[in-house]
Amino acid sequence: MSNIFIHPTALVETEQIGPGTRVWAMAHIMKDATIGANCNIGDHCFVEAGALIGNDVTVKNSNMIWEGVTIADGAFIGPHVFFTNDRFPRSPRYARVNRRYSDREWLVPTYIGEGASLGAGAVLLAGISVGAFAMVGAGAVVTRDVPDHALVIGNPAHLHGWVCYCGLPLHFEASRATCATCNLMFQQTNNSIHRSGTTTIS
Amino acid sequence: MSNIFIHPTALVETEQIGPGTRVWAMAHIMKDATIGANCNIGDHCFVEAGALIGNDVTVKNSNMIWEGVTIADGAFIGPHVFFTNDRFPRSPRYARVNRRYSDREWLVPTYIGEGASLGAGAVLLAGISVGAFAMVGAGAVVTRDVPDHALVIGNPAHLHGWVCYCGLPLHFEASRATCATCNLMFQQTNNSIHRSGTTTIS
Amino acid sequence: MSNIFIHPTALVETEQIGPGTRVWAMAHIMKDATIGANCNIGDHCFVEAGALIGNDVTVKNSNMIWEGVTIADGAFIGPHVFFTNDRFPRSPRYARVNRRYSDREWLVPTYIGEGASLGAGAVLLAGISVGAFAMVGAGAVVTRDVPDHALVIGNPAHLHGWVCYCGLPLHFEASRATCATCNLMFQQTNNSIHRSGTTTIS
Repeated sequence: MSNIFIHPTALVETEQIGPGTRVWAMAHIMKDATIGANCNIGDHCFVEAGALIGNDVTVKNSNMIWEGVTIADGAFIGPHVFFTNDRFPRSPRYARVNRRYSDREWLVPTYIGEGASLGAGAVLLAGISVGAFAMVGAGAVVTRDVPDHALVIGNPAHLHGWVCYCGLPLHFEASRATCATCNLMFQQTNNSIHRSGTTTIS
Repeated sequence: MSNIFIHPTALVETEQIGPGTRVWAMAHIMKDATIGANCNIGDHCFVEAGALIGNDVTVKNSNMIWEGVTIADGAFIGPHVFFTNDRFPRSPRYARVNRRYSDREWLVPTYIGEGASLGAGAVLLAGISVGAFAMVGAGAVVTRDVPDHALVIGNPAHLHGWVCYCGLPLHFEASRATCATCNLMFQQTNNSIHRSGTTTIS
Repeated sequence: MSNIFIHPTALVETEQIGPGTRVWAMAHIMKDATIGANCNIGDHCFVEAGALIGNDVTVKNSNMIWEGVTIADGAFIGPHVFFTNDRFPRSPRYARVNRRYSDREWLVPTYIGEGASLGAGAVLLAGISVGAFAMVGAGAVVTRDVPDHALVIGNPAHLHGWVCYCGLPLHFEASRATCATCNLMFQQTNNSIHRSGTTTIS
């Protein structure tokens, strides 16, 4: 593994890390975890065997990325987001409650789309998909899928607005909005938005 | 201590750990903490002196188990649950605010019942009891005691349903329910449920 | 640095720590972080370059104190509070979303007042000020500034009452309250409280 920075106090047991990625203090990356190029994995993180992280992903401190979690390119995982992979967890080592662990059907995947952001301490139930360029507010508890570019907040999380690629909120009038920072134009239709054909920059 | 696995990067200062228990990377178990047999204590956990953990307990990563917390056999403590032991905490080292720390009355116990589950990032106020085989949803903020077999969610947490020993939700009709997985029968009476006399398996 | 305790497994890279402060296991204090005297920094904490922590502050385990966060004397930071410093975070290393990171305008400060308390797992949006001797409930998501002595709870956090210097709730009648523990008197006016002129102790 060339051009990878691993802090001396980190434990990295996987061979599957892309160039330019940095793993910080006291993080632990298990064998058979996969991390792409140019990522940043913060202090005290844990990445489990089977987790998949794309390229250019920022994983802030203390995150636990379990088997079953896939994170697409360019996502931002805020400080200590709560991923889960079991809808109705029990202690697998206790005979009175471990009936569901006789096979692997308890394992439910989670998908975080390209360029999406998950705010600090957000909680994602197992099985959630977060759309591309969406934003989950800090402390939100996400119980349903999040559309592309949507901003969701609260417990349970609900749709609060829409954000541009850059993360800033879009203000729609007559179903149209232009990002004040990026100058990109968007069109709203029902429960989704998409870029309009005409934009002033590419 | 025989047959105990302690990861080389973990700090284990107590002598009171039962056989078959595993303590993972960068966890810290203080002197005078008590942990039973066949438990799993995940990466980056902290178990304080005075904490009591039973047998067959699964403690996922990054949990902090304080003095005053008791966890019964077979419980599942999800990723980074928030236990507390003081209802109105202040900095004990600051003279303007530390009046309550002249004695130990600030310390309020928490009890997690047999086989119960606490979801990822759940918050428990000091003094809470969670009933046997109950389930606290991910991200719930628990401000009142939780009955046996109850499923609670939200902030503040409220009763959302009932779960079987195996963790799956029970669907009651005319105060009766049968778990589709375990085939156990339950009877509902007011704010509690209990197993019916007749069951198809023991 | 005299009279400072640093656990053998902690990483302390700053020179700016006051006497009597203790840094516990597997915590990481970055260069150019500033921590005052007589503080306690719990296990698995992370204090970033640029963070400012006063004297007599209690920082419980697993906290992440970012650049932009200032904590005044005598505050209590409960287990794993979520600080943030960016209102609309994106992955700075991904070209499609990193427009806002061409300068430092994304960085928004947070201020925690003297003697205030932040409960376990509380979430603070970037830009929040928490008043002196205020108390943020466990699991609250703070989206607006918190007045001095206020108690806020919920998601989003709302005013739930008022607390004394010692942390205990005040019960107002006809705009006046006396703390049962401290015997201090308070007067309520609109959305604030202050100590009355006459008190039975200084």
